[in-house]
Order: sequence, then C-alpha cells, then structure tokens
Amino acid sequence: MPTLVVIEDALRLVDPREPVVRFADLGFTRGDGVFESVGVHRGTLMDVEPHLDRLEYSARMLDLPAPDRAAFAAAIDMAVSALFEQLGHVPDTALCKLIYTRGDEPFGGAGTPGPAFGLAFADVYPDVSEKRRRGVAALTLTRGYPLNIGAEAPWLLVGAKSLSYAFNMAAMRYARAQGAEDVILTTTDGYVLECPQSNVIALVDGVAVTPAIEGGLLHGTAQRAAFAYLGARGIACDYRPLTLAELESASSIWLTNSVQMLRPVRALNGVERSFDAELNAQMLEHLLSREG
Amino acid sequence: MPTLVVIEDALRLVDPREPVVRFADLGFTRGDGVFESVGVHRGTLMDVEPHLDRLEYSARMLDLPAPDRAAFAAAIDMAVSALFEQLGHVPDTALCKLIYTRGDEPFGGAGTPGPAFGLAFADVYPDVSEKRRRGVAALTLTRGYPLNIGAEAPWLLVGAKSLSYAFNMAAMRYARAQGAEDVILTTTDGYVLECPQSNVIALVDGVAVTPAIEGGLLHGTAQRAAFAYLGARGIACDYRPLTLAELESASSIWLTNSVQMLRPVRALNGVERSFDAELNAQMLEHLLSREG
Repeated sequence: MPTLVVIEDALRLVDPREPVVRFADLGFTRGDGVFESVGVHRGTLMDVEPHLDRLEYSARMLDLPAPDRAAFAAAIDMAVSALFEQLGHVPDTALCKLIYTRGDEPFGGAGTPGPAFGLAFADVYPDVSEKRRRGVAALTLTRGYPLNIGAEAPWLLVGAKSLSYAFNMAAMRYARAQGAEDVILTTTDGYVLECPQSNVIALVDGVAVTPAIEGGLLHGTAQRAAFAYLGARGIACDYRPLTLAELESASSIWLTNSVQMLRPVRALNGVERSFDAELNAQMLEHLLSREG
Repeated sequence: MPTLVVIEDALRLVDPREPVVRFADLGFTRGDGVFESVGVHRGTLMDVEPHLDRLEYSARMLDLPAPDRAAFAAAIDMAVSALFEQLGHVPDTALCKLIYTRGDEPFGGAGTPGPAFGLAFADVYPDVSEKRRRGVAALTLTRGYPLNIGAEAPWLLVGAKSLSYAFNMAAMRYARAQGAEDVILTTTDGYVLECPQSNVIALVDGVAVTPAIEGGLLHGTAQRAAFAYLGARGIACDYRPLTLAELESASSIWLTNSVQMLRPVRALNGVERSFDAELNAQMLEHLLSREG
C-alpha cells in the first residue's frame, strides 16, 4: 500500500484509497497543475533539489504561485519514510510523486481560483532491472511541433511538466500496440526531442549528445546525472539540436528518467541495434548508488 | 452552491465541497480523461445528444471504454434538477459539466487502470449577455501544429475534448494579459482552427465558413446549431480550410460554444471590426430559445 501526504498548513498523512481531490480542482478538470517523480533507489532519494527546481520552473511556466519548497521536501520525507516503515524493508526502487495544482475553480464563475493544492505520494516501483540491462524497443513518433516552438509560443507550455499528459499516455499506448516499449518524440522538421517520460542521450562520434532544452523539452534530472558521470569519464557531453538521422547512426542510445534511471535502446523503429553494454552497466551502477 | 453527481452502479448526489476524486485517478495525475460542458438556457438542456455523441467520440480517441450514455443522461438530469430545486428558480444560464476518466492507476505498477470514473456537475453561469450583444476582443495565437496533423498523428489526440487543457488555459491567460478576451488558434501554416473553448464561424463573401473538423478540431455543438439556423435563413454554410487572411477579411466573425452560445468578435489582434448586429441578435435569440 502506498502512502499519501496532503500539504496544507501542516502535513497530513492520509489513506491513498480515500478521495482527497475536490471536483472543482483545476488539476482535475483542466490538467492545470504540475508534477515531479522523484526516484528512490536502494533507499536513497535521488536529485531532490533538481526536482524541486523543476517543480518551481514548471509552476512558473503555468503562472502558478511559487511552490513551498520546504513543505514539499518535508512531504517527500514523510511519504517515503511512512512507505518504508509500512513495508518493513527498503525496496530496491520506489518513487515519490509530487503534484501541485492551481486549486479549486470558484463556484458560479465568480472570484479567482485557488489556493494552490499540493500532494506527495510514495509507492514501490516494479522491477525494471531487465530493461536497464538488456534495453528497450523504441518507436519514433512526431510531437507535431517544429523545433524551438516553445520560444515563440510560451502558451504551449513546452518544457513544463504539467498534469496535461493525455497525449504522452496516448503515444505510449500507440507504441505498445506496435510492439514497442517506449517512444522517442520528434519534431515536424526532423529533430529529436524526448520521450513521454524520459530524456534521450545518443553517443554520436564519441560525444554524448542530448537535445538542447531550448528546442522544447524538459531538462532531465537523470540525464544531468548521466552527463556528470560521462564527463568525469572523459567523454565529451553536448546539448545541441539532434537530428533523427544522427540518432539512427548513434553507436549507443539511452533513455533516462528518475525512476527507471537508465535504459539502453536495443531496437529503434523495429531495427535491432547495439549499445555499449559495459559502459551501460558501469553508468547504471554509478547512477543507482549515488548518495542522493 | 452547485450540485455534483457521482456515476457508479447507482447515481449518487454528493456535496461538491467534499473530495470525490482519489489521488490515483488518471484524470487527475495525467489529465487522462474527457469532458463535456452542456449549456442550460432558460431551464432547457441544449444539445444533450450531440454532447453525449462527442463524449463517446473523445473517449474512443483516448481508448477509454465507451461511456454509459444512459447513466450520463440521467446524471445530467439529476444534477440540473437538484441545482434548480436548491436555487428555487430557473437561472438564465447554467452549465452541466461531464467528466469521464480512465480511473485509478494500480498501486505498485501491477495490473490495469480503472474502472472508468464519471461525474456530472451543475452550476449557474455568470451573465454574458453583454459579450453576446457587443462582442469580444480576440487574439490569434499559434497552436504549434500544421493543418491536418491529427490525421497522420492520432496520438496527439487532436479533436478530443480531453482533460489535458493546461495549454488552453495558458493561451487564455496570455490573451487576457494582452487585453483580449478570447483566443483564435491558428496552424503553423496559416489556417484558422478554433478557440480554447469555442468554435469559429466567419462570414466570407456571404458564406458562413467554419474550419473543417478534419483539420484538427472539435465539432462544436453550438456551431452545428448556428449552421442549422443560418442554413434555414438561406445563408450557405461550409466546412472547409479557412485561412487567417480570410478570417481577417470576413464581414462577421462569431465564436460559438454551448454555454456562452454566440459571441461576435468586435476586435481581432487589436483592430476594431464590425459584425452584422441584426443577424447576431436574431441568431442568438433562436439559439437560446430552442427546445433542447
């Protein structure tokens, strides 16, 4: 059973089976809120500060009030501690999901929405060791946008981790129906963006490349940790526009996120491909065994 | 105070101030659900069947189970009747909002989501008679997509009325910050789509034109009723691609939706413009006084 913390004047641990969200909450009626998923690996909360930074960034893009970082940090600790206590052991992989919404739309159309509403939820995560070691089959699908649309059209909320993820879920369902396990989103003009729930790193001519965040994507916390590791090993790392042709010719492709952490791509659009298995194993072990 | 009906094995009238949505509901965590807003004008529920048709259509686009039409229809009646009874009179304008989500994500990542979850909410709506008569200032903003992207990329859910409306809300906030009252979305290749919460009808060379739904938008219930009225008056009506240049040169522009029903555009991108005030008044009276 997972744990759930409501962030109000005080933190309140509640039963996650019970309703906690009102109908009028704009996070529910409009997907008008933001979220983060913090990975908890071998008992250690990873990259909490970068996650809180990104929660703030997403909130700013949606014109939400700045989230109370201290309250969210305390809620993470409370939810994860309660999960471990209830389990009676430290699970290999867990996650702590943060949600922050605009709060209730006023009844009768009069007044302003709010106050903003925050929650932290902790749960164990299924075993993904096989996917981390052997890789996943990915499919490229268009995001429908040209590169850099976010810069000229901030109302599209490109790069915000909003609750409006219906498209991301639909893209994943489409991929699974085609026999793939994940999606790499591309622009209408032939550039690589990100996955619905991960970032992409491609080893191109010996350089680790991830798409420039200005192109319209989330700055991944696990991707940053992977770049720190690769850089320390002497591998050059670059944020820049990455074309689909470059992706196809890369010697290794990885998908990174906080919870699944690192998964190599073993097939792209149905074509089997290789990856540096030794580098994968070493980078994975480093990323999972950090001190937070 | 509005009214809220939970659709389960039986319908249940609940207090809309109380939480009814669980944290794990994918409509909350992922905007993974669909909705409809049914206008209730002078006590009459308008276009219920087209709204239920569209709820079904949106659900199909999101691979949701088919909604129980009879249950939703009964929930609408229960919520609206309870609202009127509580008010003690019939309000000029009310709305009944339907929400239908995929239901709960399973805990621990094991199992399948669901069961689907449905609600009907009824509330009075603020007076919009001034906007219906004098019109609104609209701003054109890009949707970021080329025309017809929905046909080649169904995973983008173009034309589904999903709960993932954060972008629509952001576009409306952007417009209000520029002094406008509504947004007309356009494609990257210069075509008109729709508004975040309305459809567009433009009178071009004496023909009422609304953008073809195949271009990637919702088929409006009020727009269909307006076309029926205009057609009966002998004005030709056409669904076809509509360019921004044609919109700018139109003799009248209207925005239509179920609740605000009909609003002429009195300014576009800061440029004042005229509309056929007599036709507007007559069409409005017809649309508001229909028998359902």
